[in-house]
Amino acid sequence: MPTSLTEALRELALANRIAANEGVLDTFGHVSMRHPDNPQRYFLSRSSAPDMVTADGLIEYDLDSRPVRDTSVPQYSERVIHGEIYKARPDVMAVCHHHSPSFMPLLATGTDYVPVFHLGSVGGIRPPFWDQRDEFGDTMMLVVKPEEGASLARTLGARPMVLMRRHGVTVIGTSVRDCVYRAVQSCRNADFQVRAMSIGSVSSLSEGETRLAGEITVKTTGLTRSWDYWAMRVGKVSGPPAPRPRAKSTAAKGRKRSRSRRR
Amino acid sequence: MPTSLTEALRELALANRIAANEGVLDTFGHVSMRHPDNPQRYFLSRSSAPDMVTADGLIEYDLDSRPVRDTSVPQYSERVIHGEIYKARPDVMAVCHHHSPSFMPLLATGTDYVPVFHLGSVGGIRPPFWDQRDEFGDTMMLVVKPEEGASLARTLGARPMVLMRRHGVTVIGTSVRDCVYRAVQSCRNADFQVRAMSIGSVSSLSEGETRLAGEITVKTTGLTRSWDYWAMRVGKVSGPPAPRPRAKSTAAKGRKRSRSRRR
Amino acid sequence: MPTSLTEALRELALANRIAANEGVLDTFGHVSMRHPDNPQRYFLSRSSAPDMVTADGLIEYDLDSRPVRDTSVPQYSERVIHGEIYKARPDVMAVCHHHSPSFMPLLATGTDYVPVFHLGSVGGIRPPFWDQRDEFGDTMMLVVKPEEGASLARTLGARPMVLMRRHGVTVIGTSVRDCVYRAVQSCRNADFQVRAMSIGSVSSLSEGETRLAGEITVKTTGLTRSWDYWAMRVGKVSGPPAPRPRAKSTAAKGRKRSRSRRR
Amino acid sequence: MPTSLTEALRELALANRIAANEGVLDTFGHVSMRHPDNPQRYFLSRSSAPDMVTADGLIEYDLDSRPVRDTSVPQYSERVIHGEIYKARPDVMAVCHHHSPSFMPLLATGTDYVPVFHLGSVGGIRPPFWDQRDEFGDTMMLVVKPEEGASLARTLGARPMVLMRRHGVTVIGTSVRDCVYRAVQSCRNADFQVRAMSIGSVSSLSEGETRLAGEITVKTTGLTRSWDYWAMRVGKVSGPPAPRPRAKSTAAKGRKRSRSRRR
Repeated sequence: MPTSLTEALRELALANRIAANEGVLDTFGHVSMRHPDNPQRYFLSRSSAPDMVTADGLIEYDLDSRPVRDTSVPQYSERVIHGEIYKARPDVMAVCHHHSPSFMPLLATGTDYVPVFHLGSVGGIRPPFWDQRDEFGDTMMLVVKPEEGASLARTLGARPMVLMRRHGVTVIGTSVRDCVYRAVQSCRNADFQVRAMSIGSVSSLSEGETRLAGEITVKTTGLTRSWDYWAMRVGKVSGPPAPRPRAKSTAAKGRKRSRSRRR
Repeated sequence: MPTSLTEALRELALANRIAANEGVLDTFGHVSMRHPDNPQRYFLSRSSAPDMVTADGLIEYDLDSRPVRDTSVPQYSERVIHGEIYKARPDVMAVCHHHSPSFMPLLATGTDYVPVFHLGSVGGIRPPFWDQRDEFGDTMMLVVKPEEGASLARTLGARPMVLMRRHGVTVIGTSVRDCVYRAVQSCRNADFQVRAMSIGSVSSLSEGETRLAGEITVKTTGLTRSWDYWAMRVGKVSGPPAPRPRAKSTAAKGRKRSRSRRR
Repeated sequence: MPTSLTEALRELALANRIAANEGVLDTFGHVSMRHPDNPQRYFLSRSSAPDMVTADGLIEYDLDSRPVRDTSVPQYSERVIHGEIYKARPDVMAVCHHHSPSFMPLLATGTDYVPVFHLGSVGGIRPPFWDQRDEFGDTMMLVVKPEEGASLARTLGARPMVLMRRHGVTVIGTSVRDCVYRAVQSCRNADFQVRAMSIGSVSSLSEGETRLAGEITVKTTGLTRSWDYWAMRVGKVSGPPAPRPRAKSTAAKGRKRSRSRRR
Repeated sequence: MPTSLTEALRELALANRIAANEGVLDTFGHVSMRHPDNPQRYFLSRSSAPDMVTADGLIEYDLDSRPVRDTSVPQYSERVIHGEIYKARPDVMAVCHHHSPSFMPLLATGTDYVPVFHLGSVGGIRPPFWDQRDEFGDTMMLVVKPEEGASLARTLGARPMVLMRRHGVTVIGTSVRDCVYRAVQSCRNADFQVRAMSIGSVSSLSEGETRLAGEITVKTTGLTRSWDYWAMRVGKVSGPPAPRPRAKSTAAKGRKRSRSRRR
């Protein structure tokens, strides 16, 4: 886990690349993080394909999704999704908005998500649907106005995930790693569920199983193992580099650690 | 955006490789471009797998799809698709003809394409179907005669896309980038739609949503972000190289820029 | 096209690797070639994963599938498929036996293959089914006895392809390239057909369209373009190396040509 | 086949990486091996993504799944699956527990597995289902208590595979290679079956065909060919290095053999 702001920002950049590499994000979508030292701020990348996000390109926003410092770089248009959820949910430390192919059949048909295997419990049973059309009529479907973001946050309520009809998914976490873990595992569950529905009637985890299985990540080494594995797959070693007094050797180590092992 | 013919031709070659890399084209299919300075001409590659198209291999055609200069290299047999659409649609600056697996279930069953998420709006709601058999009876299914191309262009009408029964798709654009963007996003939408139909009844974007969402690309940074990302994925930096007076440094820069990063 | 036996054998080895790389073969399955100078002989690799087949590992067989020369290397157990088809079909110059995932849904359900796009015409309309159980009762499902191979060849008849219930597919060609082309394109068609059937009723090419579209490969540059593209993808330039009197420069050229570009 | 404990441990590590590379395992799941010289012991990796398992990280357990030597490294939580099966099945020499996407539609719907092609026979006809909820009520779905593992082993009985509702699969083998072979081929069969069920009614191999086809691996070169192919794909040459008296040349050879050829 990160122990300084610099490390936290590196981890957030890595989170975007992991989510891209594991099929959650593609050209679009983003992972944000609440400022670890100031709950009234959050970090989100400048406009960029998630696979290309770097710590240098992260922008600090207030909860009204205005950049804290003047910037001329292009920004994501849907950042109110993040800001409005951080306002409404003090427990949330990270947010991922995505349009993963895994979820599209559910979103296009209005089919409820249910956990069909233990790791799918991260999304809960039948997370709520939000349809922008209900409150705002015909729009360009992007969540760009504060009131649109606030409406989405209200539908999310206290749940870990909200499904956006004909658009995508927004999933939260108690940390950046927890958020990415929920995003990846819920996508896999959605994929399994859709294929299962093409051959028969799907049975869900029970309420009790969902609750107990949802606690696995804090009881086992699964989250750490997953994060390390995914980080390896994007070609970056996760976590902070070992502290080094002399700049030169640190830089040399850094270069070595970041050598791409992506397949 | 390209600012000279040379740059435009490089962009067209890159467009073919991007479309191949993103799953729109494989061995077959092609992207063409209207001559930026002469609306009576268009450019299309010599016969080549799209993944192997280079600017050097582009041929200049008149709108009757005859090479402007004598050539002995093999040519695509279906080039009338391009020429006849450029004749009929002065607003069209680029054309992509493809046989993407994503669309095949719709083409084999005669199922209407509908946008099931915001980016799918690039194809419109229920684009027209064209069946070569209707007007020409049994053929080898390729569009090789001028009257076949003209018939296809008539069915396309003022729409962005025409679906060709038991064959493929032809999609147009107001620029090369716009055309590739429509091709990629409509393929993704078709894929989502097909998988959604296997589990339930699909709901489409409304007319208003389709129109408004279709305008996203000119209102946001999405098109630029997508193009840059896709170009990175084929291992080429998009856009023109910076002008350099001295040949040596230009060549050195060129080698560096073209280093393959394709995975 | 190959112009000597050595070149023909190299092409056959490449054919196996192409078929593996394009998803037709995996650990199992094989492509054979009738001896270009002796119709009573054929060539097939020693037992090997298709992706690892080399010209050096090819074995010459008589039409009873006995090695012409004594050999102690492991051999494919299903070679009678090849020998018995060469016996029954003097027009056939190459045979591919495979278990591609694309076809498995048809083979497991007894669903007829129909061409759903022009390139699918290479397999014909409703190629025959062969069920080993019909004539031989319970077996281990492999075609290892001469009478089993002969039965399969009878069911194939004059068609380009025979579907083997609960097992795989055998497809023939008038040349190695033609055979690989039919194998790849029929697999793609089968995949499209299966996905199409999950959403609706599939319409087939007509008899006339199938016949005319089946002749495309000899009328256009499609076969050459495909072969060159697939060969590029397996990291080998196809065709014979230019004849060179001096060993050193040939070897240098060979190293360059065989540089892997496989992704 | 391995001829010493060191070689056997290397093969077990490779088995985990092969199973990951062929899509059986991802972040989770594991392959274990009974101690070749002591049937009261088994080996299983420390907690690790399967793709990253090394011989150094293997832990020796007794059949109550307690480490034979004190260890402070994180351990897999579900190791009782392995220990309890080794207790109940003296014939079993290797166990693989996985959550392959291929099986998820069957597990989510309670659909029986049937062999739909000859290699699918490795899983038998209609292997038993085990539902943790039946005996233990709401749990976190992981098999972590000895009595849970024993219950699973009872349901497995004398069969090669047991399907775990809303969770995963456990498959056994008479050797590490046999176990991996069953895991990979049964996953492929499950995938074929699911896609087949989306278009029609599936026919299974008969009892006799399943028994005879299940014996293929000991009658043909299929298992060796598969293992060598899969090992090549993970970038490791399988089997023990040739014995060499001098350390230096052995090490040099080792480096060459282990050169990554993974794609």
